[in-house]
Amino acid sequence: MSAHGEDCFYCAKDERLYRLMVEICKLETSTLFLFREQTYRGRCVVALNAHETELFRLDRETLCAFSRDVAKTAAALQRAFGAAKINYAIYGDLVSHLHYHVVPKHKDGHNWGEPFAVQPSPAKHLSEEGYKEVITTIKEHLSG
Amino acid sequence: MSAHGEDCFYCAKDERLYRLMVEICKLETSTLFLFREQTYRGRCVVALNAHETELFRLDRETLCAFSRDVAKTAAALQRAFGAAKINYAIYGDLVSHLHYHVVPKHKDGHNWGEPFAVQPSPAKHLSEEGYKEVITTIKEHLSG
Repeated sequence: MSAHGEDCFYCAKDERLYRLMVEICKLETSTLFLFREQTYRGRCVVALNAHETELFRLDRETLCAFSRDVAKTAAALQRAFGAAKINYAIYGDLVSHLHYHVVPKHKDGHNWGEPFAVQPSPAKHLSEEGYKEVITTIKEHLSG
Repeated sequence: MSAHGEDCFYCAKDERLYRLMVEICKLETSTLFLFREQTYRGRCVVALNAHETELFRLDRETLCAFSRDVAKTAAALQRAFGAAKINYAIYGDLVSHLHYHVVPKHKDGHNWGEPFAVQPSPAKHLSEEGYKEVITTIKEHLSG
């Protein structure tokens, strides 16, 4: 289990976090981030607010709420970007604070039929304006 | 979305399914399978019983129950095999019937610090006796 506080960048909320992602909004029990690497347009991270490292450490209510947050995010990404399938994954061997990768996939897109690449090479970054545009689109579909 | 029935092997429950995995038991809203490829000892699949393709298609109760089934499986695998971290993933671009891969990871084991390989090469298969032994261990820890 990774340590709380400064050793965990989801807890510390420092530049290690914001170099990788941009906060979109708070959800019921988690925070929704846009992943800066945008090979898969709309790719997000849903990070639990509390520092827990496995789904089975959550109480019943938190587990349900976290799952709803992930499902709500996936629905928004599917509607916003017309994804053919959403991929969902918790890995966290090294950064074990619970976070789901939520990744829209397209039939003619990157890695269709296989897992999304966690760190695609070459990386695709957007301008700050580009991130704002994607975030605006996601927010419209989160509330829809 | 993949079709129901014969086109979906989780629905058809035919040899396409049983070539890949061995049924362990029914859970609340899903079925637990041992993945025959055992590079990651104890690796399982938790497949929803109903044919649905995205978490956001599930009603609130089913989503919670499915999440509990996955968490319960992960807890059992962690206890049974002393995993340092569990990886959880829904991909399903090609076989879209909702199923989680639940994969125990070890610090000195395969792919520590990166996603588990969906189809490791070379594949590691066990004898039928070997599968029974792993399944017995998992069952002991599911009820624990």
